[in-house]
Amino acid sequence: MTDTDALASLTDDDVRALDAWFRAANYLTVAQIYLQDNVLLERPLTPDDIKPRLLGHWGTGPGQALVYAHMNRLIRLTGQQAIYLSGPGHGGPTLVGAGWLEDTYSEVYPDVTRDGAGMKRLCRQFSSPGGIPSHVSVTTPGSIHEGGELGYALVHAFGSVFDNPDLLSVCVVGDGEAETGPLEGSWKGISFLNPERDGAVLPILHLNGAKIASPTVLARKSPEDVRALFTGHGYDVIEVEGDDLPGMHHRFAAGLAEAYGKIRAIQTAARDGSWDGAMPRWPMIVLRSPKGWTGPKTVDGVQVEGTWRAHQVPLSGVKENADHLRQLEEWMRSYDPDELFPDGIPNADIDANNPAGELRMSANPAANGGVLTEDLRIRPFRDYALDVTSPASTRVEGMRQLGAMLADFYRDNPETFRLFCPDETNSNRLGAVFDVSDRMSAEVVTDEDVKLSKDGRVMEVLSEHNCQGWLEAYTLTGRHGMFATYEAFAMVSASMTVQHAKWLEEANHLPWRAKIPSLNILLTSTTWRNDHNGFSHQGPGLINVVLNMRSAVARVYLPPDANCMLSVADHCFRSRNYVNLLVMDKQPHLQYLTMDEAVEHCTKGAGIWEWAGNETGTDGKPDIVLACAGDVVTAETVAAAELLKEWVPDLSVRVVNVVDLMTLPRQKDHPHGMSEADFRGLFTDDVDVVFAFHGYHGAIHKLVHGRPKADRFHVRGFIEQGTTTTPFDMTVLNEASRYHLAVDALNNTDATPANAQELREHCAQMLEKHHAYVREHLQDMPEVRDWVLGQQS
Amino acid sequence: MTDTDALASLTDDDVRALDAWFRAANYLTVAQIYLQDNVLLERPLTPDDIKPRLLGHWGTGPGQALVYAHMNRLIRLTGQQAIYLSGPGHGGPTLVGAGWLEDTYSEVYPDVTRDGAGMKRLCRQFSSPGGIPSHVSVTTPGSIHEGGELGYALVHAFGSVFDNPDLLSVCVVGDGEAETGPLEGSWKGISFLNPERDGAVLPILHLNGAKIASPTVLARKSPEDVRALFTGHGYDVIEVEGDDLPGMHHRFAAGLAEAYGKIRAIQTAARDGSWDGAMPRWPMIVLRSPKGWTGPKTVDGVQVEGTWRAHQVPLSGVKENADHLRQLEEWMRSYDPDELFPDGIPNADIDANNPAGELRMSANPAANGGVLTEDLRIRPFRDYALDVTSPASTRVEGMRQLGAMLADFYRDNPETFRLFCPDETNSNRLGAVFDVSDRMSAEVVTDEDVKLSKDGRVMEVLSEHNCQGWLEAYTLTGRHGMFATYEAFAMVSASMTVQHAKWLEEANHLPWRAKIPSLNILLTSTTWRNDHNGFSHQGPGLINVVLNMRSAVARVYLPPDANCMLSVADHCFRSRNYVNLLVMDKQPHLQYLTMDEAVEHCTKGAGIWEWAGNETGTDGKPDIVLACAGDVVTAETVAAAELLKEWVPDLSVRVVNVVDLMTLPRQKDHPHGMSEADFRGLFTDDVDVVFAFHGYHGAIHKLVHGRPKADRFHVRGFIEQGTTTTPFDMTVLNEASRYHLAVDALNNTDATPANAQELREHCAQMLEKHHAYVREHLQDMPEVRDWVLGQQS
Repeated sequence: MTDTDALASLTDDDVRALDAWFRAANYLTVAQIYLQDNVLLERPLTPDDIKPRLLGHWGTGPGQALVYAHMNRLIRLTGQQAIYLSGPGHGGPTLVGAGWLEDTYSEVYPDVTRDGAGMKRLCRQFSSPGGIPSHVSVTTPGSIHEGGELGYALVHAFGSVFDNPDLLSVCVVGDGEAETGPLEGSWKGISFLNPERDGAVLPILHLNGAKIASPTVLARKSPEDVRALFTGHGYDVIEVEGDDLPGMHHRFAAGLAEAYGKIRAIQTAARDGSWDGAMPRWPMIVLRSPKGWTGPKTVDGVQVEGTWRAHQVPLSGVKENADHLRQLEEWMRSYDPDELFPDGIPNADIDANNPAGELRMSANPAANGGVLTEDLRIRPFRDYALDVTSPASTRVEGMRQLGAMLADFYRDNPETFRLFCPDETNSNRLGAVFDVSDRMSAEVVTDEDVKLSKDGRVMEVLSEHNCQGWLEAYTLTGRHGMFATYEAFAMVSASMTVQHAKWLEEANHLPWRAKIPSLNILLTSTTWRNDHNGFSHQGPGLINVVLNMRSAVARVYLPPDANCMLSVADHCFRSRNYVNLLVMDKQPHLQYLTMDEAVEHCTKGAGIWEWAGNETGTDGKPDIVLACAGDVVTAETVAAAELLKEWVPDLSVRVVNVVDLMTLPRQKDHPHGMSEADFRGLFTDDVDVVFAFHGYHGAIHKLVHGRPKADRFHVRGFIEQGTTTTPFDMTVLNEASRYHLAVDALNNTDATPANAQELREHCAQMLEKHHAYVREHLQDMPEVRDWVLGQQS
Repeated sequence: MTDTDALASLTDDDVRALDAWFRAANYLTVAQIYLQDNVLLERPLTPDDIKPRLLGHWGTGPGQALVYAHMNRLIRLTGQQAIYLSGPGHGGPTLVGAGWLEDTYSEVYPDVTRDGAGMKRLCRQFSSPGGIPSHVSVTTPGSIHEGGELGYALVHAFGSVFDNPDLLSVCVVGDGEAETGPLEGSWKGISFLNPERDGAVLPILHLNGAKIASPTVLARKSPEDVRALFTGHGYDVIEVEGDDLPGMHHRFAAGLAEAYGKIRAIQTAARDGSWDGAMPRWPMIVLRSPKGWTGPKTVDGVQVEGTWRAHQVPLSGVKENADHLRQLEEWMRSYDPDELFPDGIPNADIDANNPAGELRMSANPAANGGVLTEDLRIRPFRDYALDVTSPASTRVEGMRQLGAMLADFYRDNPETFRLFCPDETNSNRLGAVFDVSDRMSAEVVTDEDVKLSKDGRVMEVLSEHNCQGWLEAYTLTGRHGMFATYEAFAMVSASMTVQHAKWLEEANHLPWRAKIPSLNILLTSTTWRNDHNGFSHQGPGLINVVLNMRSAVARVYLPPDANCMLSVADHCFRSRNYVNLLVMDKQPHLQYLTMDEAVEHCTKGAGIWEWAGNETGTDGKPDIVLACAGDVVTAETVAAAELLKEWVPDLSVRVVNVVDLMTLPRQKDHPHGMSEADFRGLFTDDVDVVFAFHGYHGAIHKLVHGRPKADRFHVRGFIEQGTTTTPFDMTVLNEASRYHLAVDALNNTDATPANAQELREHCAQMLEKHHAYVREHLQDMPEVRDWVLGQQS
């Protein structure tokens, strides 16, 4: 391991270059937080040089500067492909400064030149109106991780290296972030990592002791306990501690060399055939450096460095307090800016520590995954079509069609497609993927395990956070995938969905950010068919979350049957920079459309189902429109139309099905929005619409707002009623059954068809019969079930 | 420790009673999953005895039965107050069976008698229409934890024992659940536990190996790594493993005795003055027993016991498969039901293992916290009033008023009130609580720490999941509290909020469940004033989540100023069984109402602010209504009204402020809904309303749906536009600034006041000036800031 030996020991030149880079990064961090002028300290600081509002966090910066500087040396010496994920909150200035030192920042933002003028701009834009946020964000070159909402740094690191064998993702985890559940859960990533095919993550837990106002849990644990914790998680723990310089350079270089040597040894063995297949013990580094290291040791006689007081802005009131202003200047001059930035330009020592070109972490293409993205190889989706000879005549588990499609994705894209799912791939009827790939586990596999191996690429872990976070990073680094989960439990990671959408929304405004594959979320154990699991499993809340996103990224599809799902999925897997929500249940459901009809229907996004309706009027207007979006409520709508046809044949009924929810809003509100002419074509100008919706009914009220006479939309949806019951009872509890819809139709039309009263009475009787059986005759359960299920045929 | 010695060793009578109880619980688990008749096996099983649909999970049951049986013995011998939290999913039948064996079930549900007829009912109701879900739920006596959505068992256990010194919460964590982030993060609970004042949690990690279709991560780790992991988390790890009987009884009794002895030793020392204050090493148990232990070892020649195949229903197709039917009968008879249930009633051995009365875990009052709830002692909230002499004339950090109120809660309720917050109590201007109580930390405290001690009761941990979960359980066990967090990051635990609401919604239908203190969530670093933190910190999504809940539990308040907040908070802290969302920013904001005015305004929930408007019409109708809900948008609305008064004094303008968002829907849709007369009184019949809303605008469209001419409500709200910028720019980006609102008013009235065009031009100019400065003149930042901030005065 001579490579590692060479890495571990520093020459004087190494130390000079590393330390120059380290000091320069620290200087830029302080300058960004404090200065709006005189950023090179060409004259003594004055209050006018100080920003009016001091934002950004200093405390985390120096430790991250140390890591970044040393990673640069490692990359230079080894040619390693690497990206850097910065977990600590508001540690943006250090990473922004790193990109500027590496010249990437100026390449991406030509206005921010790599000289004194550019440095001034860099400082002024930081946490300023029209500028950039105080944490690493989508605007930061080299980042695939926004450090705003804490908890996801490590899960993103793992997602980035799956099927990326040459990539090393260095992930700095702050000890504040380490208190979050999602972060703590993401240490398990190594149990799903294959050293032969995947790259490596090097987690660096930065224990600098404190969060905003108090210590962190891990910082106060004994070193023995911290070692035990991460040994227990499966890591080989390497510790680096101190605050002395250049001592810390030597120790960190040795620690990083040890870690890198172990990573390469694991990978080499896995790739040259000498690996026995046992799960490797991957290295991690615990870095203990003082919070706000190299900053003011004391302020106003109170200890600052190494305490929570160094977390944000260690010197406050600098504009007003001459003593603080003087101390700031001393602090900044301690890094020797004259030496570091002659003529405002980083000096030769700094340059010497920068890798070249795309090896720079701030310029690595993996952190701008769209430039690496290749289209997913997709076979003609008609190959998976379900043969539908007549509408609403057969019940099929339509998800199996999608499963066949995903299986071929695995066949045809063996390095660029993965399915992520909390241990429910089979349960979700997507098990066809196991014909091509096992579940992944790096842990011990026994004879009793089925479709489980270290070579598997189907990702099952009982953690929505891990599933979603892995997929996010997998797409951010340019690959394709899907997260399939229970509809109700998609809310577990809803905040991640929101944050990813925010990333995409902002990425759309950055020309240098190439578009990445969309985040495809499949909800296929849905609210209406968790009749067996009960109320806790019944909740369509994620639809509303996605509807709040900007129209540029939000897409919600509710295919009514298998062929529509295939058409929609084909579209979603070809798309870029969207959050695609696909909602369809896994249970046997009625099928409606042939493949040709499905393609036409999905292309329009919504359409009239003439076969389901009964339009008898001569003026081109029905008496009532029955609309629906979602599989179960579509079945109820079609059945309600049947009831109306049978009992009140005089009534002119139109049935409209909506696949693409985003066709409903006005064109000015969403790019998928139908023209007003098309909207009137479906829903007329003024005829009342009984709308059966899969989710909470407020969503439809919101979507049709501003459409002609929006008040005529009478929505039935999930009204938060549920329990363990029968599928049909779920529709009754939520007042969205065929009987409710049929009566709604009668109540909301001006027409007065013959037999209307008879139909009302029939519906009331049927509901009464249902209630009587289900609610009062539990002891007659089997008959109840037969009867109730019979209602659904 | 003779107590512990006695606990550790079992007499023959002990074994007989424990084993009878264990077998009975297992029998009931199997019976609930499979049988609808012949539940005592009084005759050979026939296909008709089998349920039509087999639901519920067998795999986790026997291990939990073992734990419960042994806890019963411990309680009998020690008199320990204890509750049981069951983490594993769908493990409901075992806990339901336990309650029935203890007779609690029949006490709570008299129809389910403790005899053969009752057992039949117990079986038939399980996972059946009109029955109970397959996981532990609100219907399960003795539970404060719904096992539907995984991840929260342990955080609920910790929340239950804070300030409950006599309570032991036994928490079984499934190894599937242990893969979730929230669960992994909740092991940190012991770092916040004070043995003197708080009770104890005994976590039992049940490693039975598998989830639905594959092994779990922890089950495949070496015992050394598992020990290391939990040692690292700070626990004293006790291991019990095996599948032999009665050997497992002896070993588990010894392990439980050891754990209990350590807990009592810690508590005794802490309470008799001999504790040195160092963080105790609390015990936990790792229990390794086969998945589906005591069930079918093999089925159709394939290994089942101990594998994932035993997770759900080990014998399938029992109605059709005679061999499986026979095997089911053999399995059930292996527990000897004739001996266990003579005449259908649990035998004397079982009774001998049941604790008495409220010591039964299924009957412990702590698990029905409403019966223990005492009203929070609240001083007259007018004591904290802000002196407001004229509206909209001063800017105050109104949150400090609430802080003073919370400080007195700590003073007056030293054992029944806590504030939970991710390390931002001071930042949220609630720091007055530190005058009364420190932050809690059981870890090492140093001289640099401020307001931090083991005696503190302010709960700061950088985990929304822990904060919210602790508070949930704190209220579920009958105490009061508040979770204060960043508005955007409230979405991190949104799914917990949803699940807690579902619990309350169902609890409302169970007369035996006494009402508990409401879940109070304070969002006080809000979307509009995260101008410094940027787009990732800007998101009002939780409001929409709460609006989807049933009206019986959902409450959303947007107090416009400090005095309104006091009035609202007073109401929320007196309430029961609600989810109260309180939204008000922590920054300095304009104040409007005197305390008297605030009380009147908040009592109505919405009202006309005559001083802000300019109603000149003689027909009792203004030309336009400007409505608002939320502090920042209220300020913009008041300013827009000022502009209108100044420029177009002919225009009759009404200003309506809404504090209680739930006054907007119809009375039939929410109990707070205004009468139609009141609604017309505020918003007229037909005058257009420009509504400036704090959150996403769709929420208002949903809420006013069905109100007279709902289309006349033109909503401005957060349209997902944000960045690091100035507060005023946030309102411009989201098209909700005073200038937008003033123009909206002109655009939506039929009136044609003089000077309207001049005002339009003024507004356009002001916005243009703003854009020019903010977007194009970054280099003039200080002036921009002064100018922009000047707009807000």
